[in-house]
Amino acid sequence: MKKKRDEKVSCCEIGGRKASAVRNRSAFYRHKGEMCWRGVRDEPYKPEAGGWSRIMRRVLVGGRGESAKFHVRYFEIAPGGNSSLERHRHEHVVICVKGKGVVRMGKSKKQMEFMDTVYISPDTVHQLVNPFEGPFGFLCIVNAKRDRPEVLG
Amino acid sequence: MKKKRDEKVSCCEIGGRKASAVRNRSAFYRHKGEMCWRGVRDEPYKPEAGGWSRIMRRVLVGGRGESAKFHVRYFEIAPGGNSSLERHRHEHVVICVKGKGVVRMGKSKKQMEFMDTVYISPDTVHQLVNPFEGPFGFLCIVNAKRDRPEVLG
Repeated sequence: MKKKRDEKVSCCEIGGRKASAVRNRSAFYRHKGEMCWRGVRDEPYKPEAGGWSRIMRRVLVGGRGESAKFHVRYFEIAPGGNSSLERHRHEHVVICVKGKGVVRMGKSKKQMEFMDTVYISPDTVHQLVNPFEGPFGFLCIVNAKRDRPEVLG
Repeated sequence: MKKKRDEKVSCCEIGGRKASAVRNRSAFYRHKGEMCWRGVRDEPYKPEAGGWSRIMRRVLVGGRGESAKFHVRYFEIAPGGNSSLERHRHEHVVICVKGKGVVRMGKSKKQMEFMDTVYISPDTVHQLVNPFEGPFGFLCIVNAKRDRPEVLG
């Protein structure tokens, strides 16, 4: 019965729990495969359009009132897609966990594959791009309190 | 020639660069396989003994003067090993990336496999254990400024 119910709902969903009910409590997010987690929903990459395409977001830690000074998000870029080309004061840590893609940091462009990790320091122009045939998925860790990005293109 | 040189050095090492030379610069850590990264060295889990065994640490972000409000570390527990049973004010996020293990959080014990993710809230007693046959590897993200753990056993 349980399996049948799971088939009816989207891959990543809140599961009916109110965020306020689990505010800053310890939590376990079971990976269901394909970078979907029980209790974690799909979200748009950003609320507004602008220079990005074919990318989505799953917030693992940071959307439920957690007190940690950082947020942990998973992003996935479909073939041909890209994040915004942007710059901001806050740092990024990006860890590739699915497929492969390209990270632009300043003047450098590097291919990223499984577990390749980048630290993007303040004010470094950066962008994640997927010129390959399969999806490119990565963890992105940021400060909980951060400035708004300047979108460059 | 390059490959031959790599064979002579340990799996994870600093590569001769002084930490001060790369202070808060953007950086790319290429994954060399088996959860070893170019430019990231093996370290002991903790400087002092006490309640832990068969566990080691690789600091991806946090040991080079980065300004981010968080640190990203990789830990690996060999079969039969465990982290300290401990409690502290700061939060943990743990993401399993290799093998499988068990996380204890308060009274709960859960098996962790690839990409299973836990948020451990302040003052929750916790421990990571590997009762399985292969190595158990996980990312652990913490606040850069954090209190000293109280080791319970």
